[in-house]
Amino acid sequence: MSSFRGGYVGRILRIDLTRKKSVTQPLPPELAYNYIGGYGIGGRILYDEVPPWVSAFDAENLLIFSTGPVNGTPTPVAGRHTVVAKSPLTGFFGDANAGGFWGAELKAAGYDLLIISGRAEKPTFIFVRDGEVRFGDATPYWGLDARESERRLKKDLGDPKIQVSNIGQAGENLVRFAGILTDEANRIAARCGLGAVMGSKKLKAVAVRGSGKVPVANEEEFRKITQEVIKNVRQEQNIQTFSKGGTPMLFGPLWQLGDTPGFNWTARQLNPETLSWPGGYETILSGNRSCYVCPIGCRRISTVKEGAYAFEPNVEGPEYETISMLGSNCGVTDVKAVAKANDLCNLYGLDTISTGGTIAFAMECFERGLITKEDTGGLELTFGNADAMIKMIEMIASRQGFGDILAEGSRRAARIIGRGAEDYAIHVKGVEIAAHDPRVFQGGGPHYACCITGGRHTEGITLECELLGRSRETLGIPKLSTSPEGKGLAAKVTEDWTAFIASAGWCIFADIFAAYLPEENFVKAFNAVTGLNLTLKDALLAGERIFNIRKAFNVKHGASRADDKLPKRLLEEKGRAGTVVDLSKTLEEYYESRGWDKNTSKPTKEKLIQLGLQDVAKDLWG
Amino acid sequence: MSSFRGGYVGRILRIDLTRKKSVTQPLPPELAYNYIGGYGIGGRILYDEVPPWVSAFDAENLLIFSTGPVNGTPTPVAGRHTVVAKSPLTGFFGDANAGGFWGAELKAAGYDLLIISGRAEKPTFIFVRDGEVRFGDATPYWGLDARESERRLKKDLGDPKIQVSNIGQAGENLVRFAGILTDEANRIAARCGLGAVMGSKKLKAVAVRGSGKVPVANEEEFRKITQEVIKNVRQEQNIQTFSKGGTPMLFGPLWQLGDTPGFNWTARQLNPETLSWPGGYETILSGNRSCYVCPIGCRRISTVKEGAYAFEPNVEGPEYETISMLGSNCGVTDVKAVAKANDLCNLYGLDTISTGGTIAFAMECFERGLITKEDTGGLELTFGNADAMIKMIEMIASRQGFGDILAEGSRRAARIIGRGAEDYAIHVKGVEIAAHDPRVFQGGGPHYACCITGGRHTEGITLECELLGRSRETLGIPKLSTSPEGKGLAAKVTEDWTAFIASAGWCIFADIFAAYLPEENFVKAFNAVTGLNLTLKDALLAGERIFNIRKAFNVKHGASRADDKLPKRLLEEKGRAGTVVDLSKTLEEYYESRGWDKNTSKPTKEKLIQLGLQDVAKDLWG
Repeated sequence: MSSFRGGYVGRILRIDLTRKKSVTQPLPPELAYNYIGGYGIGGRILYDEVPPWVSAFDAENLLIFSTGPVNGTPTPVAGRHTVVAKSPLTGFFGDANAGGFWGAELKAAGYDLLIISGRAEKPTFIFVRDGEVRFGDATPYWGLDARESERRLKKDLGDPKIQVSNIGQAGENLVRFAGILTDEANRIAARCGLGAVMGSKKLKAVAVRGSGKVPVANEEEFRKITQEVIKNVRQEQNIQTFSKGGTPMLFGPLWQLGDTPGFNWTARQLNPETLSWPGGYETILSGNRSCYVCPIGCRRISTVKEGAYAFEPNVEGPEYETISMLGSNCGVTDVKAVAKANDLCNLYGLDTISTGGTIAFAMECFERGLITKEDTGGLELTFGNADAMIKMIEMIASRQGFGDILAEGSRRAARIIGRGAEDYAIHVKGVEIAAHDPRVFQGGGPHYACCITGGRHTEGITLECELLGRSRETLGIPKLSTSPEGKGLAAKVTEDWTAFIASAGWCIFADIFAAYLPEENFVKAFNAVTGLNLTLKDALLAGERIFNIRKAFNVKHGASRADDKLPKRLLEEKGRAGTVVDLSKTLEEYYESRGWDKNTSKPTKEKLIQLGLQDVAKDLWG
Repeated sequence: MSSFRGGYVGRILRIDLTRKKSVTQPLPPELAYNYIGGYGIGGRILYDEVPPWVSAFDAENLLIFSTGPVNGTPTPVAGRHTVVAKSPLTGFFGDANAGGFWGAELKAAGYDLLIISGRAEKPTFIFVRDGEVRFGDATPYWGLDARESERRLKKDLGDPKIQVSNIGQAGENLVRFAGILTDEANRIAARCGLGAVMGSKKLKAVAVRGSGKVPVANEEEFRKITQEVIKNVRQEQNIQTFSKGGTPMLFGPLWQLGDTPGFNWTARQLNPETLSWPGGYETILSGNRSCYVCPIGCRRISTVKEGAYAFEPNVEGPEYETISMLGSNCGVTDVKAVAKANDLCNLYGLDTISTGGTIAFAMECFERGLITKEDTGGLELTFGNADAMIKMIEMIASRQGFGDILAEGSRRAARIIGRGAEDYAIHVKGVEIAAHDPRVFQGGGPHYACCITGGRHTEGITLECELLGRSRETLGIPKLSTSPEGKGLAAKVTEDWTAFIASAGWCIFADIFAAYLPEENFVKAFNAVTGLNLTLKDALLAGERIFNIRKAFNVKHGASRADDKLPKRLLEEKGRAGTVVDLSKTLEEYYESRGWDKNTSKPTKEKLIQLGLQDVAKDLWG
């Protein structure tokens, strides 16, 4: 029945929670060819079906679970599925992705995408099993943390092999930076607040189980590429180290470079040793894990058995981002406290980046006297106070006291606090900036400022070219000097490339750690899986189309040049490296290379037509 | 302390519900001079302070209660206050106004405007008394209808002279077309769903009481104009008839002209006699009332003592709009049933226009088989079934069963129902069109299509020029023929004029029934009250600025050319008069006379600069 030779299952499942109805539709081939998968296909659907008058928490917002063609095949480092919806943090396009096994299982159950609309009358779960859809009463799970609710659901459904995407209390309580958990709350599609969108739909969980096999179009070619990648993974020292230490291996070096934020993005120093791997992080490390068919296996399990920071043994340990945002950025150096905070965020279903960014913002407000103990309910919310941080995480998830204000994210909380608090909210478009400081890699300036989904680090940043000497000449990026020159173009190309990689279903670490080298190997693997015949140039063009359809969504929903901005602090206050962001050249260069009007930040008619988006050009330009 | 000679109190009260704090600020004179008052000043504040990422139900949306300079003075026919917020129906600019005594009392209490932000933790009321602000626990009133809650609040506060603006159950339940009541639920700021915004803030009521007097700058000139207006009111036969019959006097004649909708805007006939005044309406009429210092007093009180449609005696009777939308447009001809439905809408706090439009839409869906008794919970939701209509009003207000879907308004309900239902949702930008059919007055075409706040009839329509022979040559509108020619310009000028009149605080009936004649008398009265020195041309320019600041809000929030459209039915199906709307010439003429780009519907840079809106030009054009 499928019109695809491989990779794509060829079916979309639409679920209407309001009317408890579902319908299966074929995946239109032109959607797959032009938008690849993931937030590409999801992005085009969101653009077409969610008009500006629908806000994030409206029943009419769509919550799209999307996979790419390589998901569910034995393609290495391809265990990521994507969630797409209008974001309650930005009011613009939102997406987030998670590792684990859920995406592969959805495809085994017979679907490339789930498109969920409406709002259930009472807490509901959905169970998709080999093409059959069941709506279940989630009242017994509502109010439970994500791990407990997944375990009970599996037990109640009588099958431990079910894969679950669900929310914790934060999503239920519409915390604007709630995420969607999977794999027993060990992986999270964290950013943009999509867990709150799920909560607004009264949808506790989406369970999937399937016995289908995703065909690979060209088995022989596929085997060849796969073997090359696996060989590469085994030989490269860098990847081997990453297998052991995971993202925390980045903490020490990036802190030294001044890339990792501390004390709410100020120049204040601390000793990074206790948070680093190797280093203090080893005291909590109790093992390693892989996502679906991943030969790298960068996941680290962690254990703290005793003391105030004890938690269930052998659950996911904090990533680099978490150590930075809930560690150094909050002035906390006790790795056990960070691991505890990380586990709480996973249980409640909170994005650790936004949680850390928002609490660090509040700590600065507290130290500056903009808020007092009267506001915080007696908490001494100072930098380095790990117990206050942990208590605040609980208050945010349950929206208790001052947690109710911080649950709105730093941008909104700053408006409520007033008195200049917004100068200390380090966000773009309402999404707290991830733990990479654009003051030390100038390509990050235009990237963050113009990022479709706010302060993201996974949508293509130039960090490894600028700071770690990575060559991207294959993609057409000339070798970068330390000057701002060329950084606008570099940002644009890495974004387009990342849009292709991520939409196809790969984990971007496959690219960042160069598991596929040269970059053409991604395209070759994509072709082998799907039976298509893309060139590297085609892939970059598809990525650019994907980037622009999400941009067009933002423009339709009111985004303008004024939204392309960085926090004042990053432009005016020197970071630990002694530099500020200089947007004066890079931003214009970025708009130029993007084909976006530099006055309005709107994609030009010509650019849209060049990308085959005639209908979008008509929408935006008349 | 005030920098104003008259009319303006000169003070704004800002209330933060999240932190239970309030602050008084001076009203900036330039805001008053450039934006007059009402939705003009309120509009500029909303434009400046509510960014696109804030959605209607967000705590960060503002709910602005605004008055004009003539409110609270003895200016005739000036008892209207305005409410402004981002609308949950449109996602764009929302405003609504109500008669009664509340606006005058707010000014007596010391304020021109209340700007309410944030969201209370639990049901709250605000009591403003001579410059003092009190936050009260509204838990005892939450769940009560608006009339009962106003009465209890007055009793509990111990002062029967307090004026109250509040919501009923519909606003509490976030029904998207809930309004804000006043004067014991007899008057309502009905449109755009602002009652739901109030509900989302957990704000049950705003009570005001004051002993201040609003100064009039030029008493002698003021007396002169006032006497002229009152003389005019007493002499004009037309106004005298309006004093007796109120807006229902329009029902018979407008039905005959084909202007009044029936059976969801189809050509189906009925006998209008039982709904008309004089006629069947007289059987429910039990008296007349006035708003604050109004010499016309068009309000009719009504009584139905016995039978299924009985309600509390001597409450507000249905207006023309209500008789049309809950009467003929639902195929209901029993005036007692309509009066009962009207009273229920007032008690629950529902806009009767959107309620009638949405139920008529559902009736058509039912008759066409798009929904069945299974959907409606057993209700035979056919045209003419008054009991089903009344039951559905209750279900909408409480969001029970299918009422939960209709509570979203016809546009969203149509998306949920699917299967082509949207062809029967008669709305513009999500706001159900008021009971005047643009198929019989072609100036209504561009007016409705481009209306900032959706399908409104009170923002300047050309009906009385086109159908009732009213001359508007003083305003610069040439005499109109029946051809579409000149109708775009006519729409533009009447809108600008209405924006001035309404923002100043007048009831637009002062203008429609020509109580002030010639039109300059409005400007003279405005000058006498404020001590300013506007010409008619200045007033029209201020009106145009006000119209455009609201438009600019919409553009910033994602409005585009695609939003300027009419329901297919009005363009393709002949109404009772045998005509359709012909937008082919009028729309282009309208854009031309507005100085809006015809491809994107965006105000041109030149137009904005001409209106002194340089900053807005920069926002929209870079």
